[in-house]
Amino acid sequence: MIQTDILIIGAGPTGLFTVFEAGLLQLKCHLIDALPQPGGQCAEIYPKKPIYDIPAYPEILAGDLVDRLMEQIRPFNPGFTLGERAETLEKQEDGQFVVTTNRGTRHKAPVVVIAGGLGSFEPRKPQIDNLADFEDRGVSYMVRDPEVFRDKKVVIAGGGDSALDWSIFLADVAAEVSLVHRRNEFRGALDSVEKASALAAAGKIRLYTEAQVTRLYGDAHLEAVVVSYNDQERGESYVEADHFIPLFGLSPKLGPIGDWGLEIERNAIKVNNAYDYQTNIPGVYAIGDVNTYPGKLKLILSGFHEAAVMCQSAYQVVNPGKRYVMKYTTVGGVTGFDGSKKEAKKEVIQAIA
Amino acid sequence: MIQTDILIIGAGPTGLFTVFEAGLLQLKCHLIDALPQPGGQCAEIYPKKPIYDIPAYPEILAGDLVDRLMEQIRPFNPGFTLGERAETLEKQEDGQFVVTTNRGTRHKAPVVVIAGGLGSFEPRKPQIDNLADFEDRGVSYMVRDPEVFRDKKVVIAGGGDSALDWSIFLADVAAEVSLVHRRNEFRGALDSVEKASALAAAGKIRLYTEAQVTRLYGDAHLEAVVVSYNDQERGESYVEADHFIPLFGLSPKLGPIGDWGLEIERNAIKVNNAYDYQTNIPGVYAIGDVNTYPGKLKLILSGFHEAAVMCQSAYQVVNPGKRYVMKYTTVGGVTGFDGSKKEAKKEVIQAIA
Repeated sequence: MIQTDILIIGAGPTGLFTVFEAGLLQLKCHLIDALPQPGGQCAEIYPKKPIYDIPAYPEILAGDLVDRLMEQIRPFNPGFTLGERAETLEKQEDGQFVVTTNRGTRHKAPVVVIAGGLGSFEPRKPQIDNLADFEDRGVSYMVRDPEVFRDKKVVIAGGGDSALDWSIFLADVAAEVSLVHRRNEFRGALDSVEKASALAAAGKIRLYTEAQVTRLYGDAHLEAVVVSYNDQERGESYVEADHFIPLFGLSPKLGPIGDWGLEIERNAIKVNNAYDYQTNIPGVYAIGDVNTYPGKLKLILSGFHEAAVMCQSAYQVVNPGKRYVMKYTTVGGVTGFDGSKKEAKKEVIQAIA
Repeated sequence: MIQTDILIIGAGPTGLFTVFEAGLLQLKCHLIDALPQPGGQCAEIYPKKPIYDIPAYPEILAGDLVDRLMEQIRPFNPGFTLGERAETLEKQEDGQFVVTTNRGTRHKAPVVVIAGGLGSFEPRKPQIDNLADFEDRGVSYMVRDPEVFRDKKVVIAGGGDSALDWSIFLADVAAEVSLVHRRNEFRGALDSVEKASALAAAGKIRLYTEAQVTRLYGDAHLEAVVVSYNDQERGESYVEADHFIPLFGLSPKLGPIGDWGLEIERNAIKVNNAYDYQTNIPGVYAIGDVNTYPGKLKLILSGFHEAAVMCQSAYQVVNPGKRYVMKYTTVGGVTGFDGSKKEAKKEVIQAIA
């Protein structure tokens, strides 16, 4: 059993910054995340995309934001349970909570904070009867390592940037690339559409538009897909395929948290406005994109603010009756659990009138 | 008359970041500040002091924070009225507000945001009858340029870090330095106290403890001060002085804003909690350290959040009935008023699954 002061569900930017604010109050944190690394969406989905609305960062890559936050919380030495999904929440007789993951890891804390972002991201799947049978056996919903497809026959489905960009990229890697899209128009950036058309004209991508993959064939592994045209008179094509990659985007799901008895409104957890972001279960808070209240903005910077406010309230839960006097870090510095101490150097103070 | 969409009183970090959030909504901003440069306290009082609790900055100097914010808002080209204090707020018949400064500059806007921090910082002054007569004629409450004191006779009063550090620093610059403190113990850092004592022992600082400056003498300019001991039996000293620098700290004052008809609670402006940080005067908002609501934390990061939330509400005031759909900057990029456009490069998008 892992014991901590504040158990944080979700290791995205808001969850990570919570460790810092809790640390200033001498509260220990442990984070649980279904993803294999900290950073949430920023690390998993768009690490190389720039963000422009983090205060005092005119531009920062999502992955760098995560790195900076990890550096900022290091002195407070948080624990991590990664690659496991928080499944159940149980209130104990001593007033504390036990959270158990899908792998059976148990965590105990007087305060639970849900910083789950938009939830776990699950790929949108096409409706093909035996799709699930070929998952991990030729069907994948994300390209993690393009080398997997070297010299293979690949069928990609979708009409957005991901489908276009991966078709273009894999045209040089795979033995054959087929791109199947149910309309004639693509939703991607203009130059991607032009590039894909040029590759199709050059015979490097086989383009099937106004068509869908409707059946999969294979034994131990995928061997072929059937492409059916919307216009039934045009019939079907049987396309040999080692891999089928449907790229229809990711859909956020609240997941098991939805069954914890929390008040939910449109896939978000209701909290008591700005007072302390507590849910209908005392001791359980929700901050960042996962919560909702009147005037809520789904911004990372709002998650940071909510983390700071929530930690003040959590301090009272962990230390009932004890009073905490907030000090500005410019005045008091920061003392980490690892023994580190950060404060303004004497010569710096000297320069101040 | 300066016309804008959002008139911001106070150009500290919160006021500056408001320009960014307003800019995302295509709203123009103009800032008024009594200080001669943007940045508020961070620029004026402690530019070289590190701050540790800005999210994703493990450490940043207050002055650098201001520089980064100025860079972030540059594309939105805000206007500034600096070195002038907002004196009056008048509601016009057309529903807009006119704010006039102490120098008579007039500004008009449908939305006014008070981001005044702790107010204007005014030096705490000792009670000496003719003190005001010598202001700018030998009496100063801040050291802006130490060279002013080169080869002069200087009397410093106070027992904190400022008094100690400037006494130590000026011991090498001024012809004579006297340090007057009403107690025997100093509140400064230990090594400053030791350094000052050593300089006193070496005759480079004249130390008057358990004593106060009680009278000033001079004609067109200060010529001498009288130092009176607490113990009347020890009497008084007449000390020649070209300059007298009382360093008793700065005291924040809400100033003329206090007379604008806003609901005030303990020197802060009451707002409607997190909904949109509007005051009791519709169209007038208060954000950052100047406001108060249940659960309020006086943190810069909270000011940033409040700015973002407030701008959404201000958009409705400026564009009644128009609907704004928030887009993540990772998706939509940022388009500045100066024609600049910041967005993720195509090849960046390509790398995303």
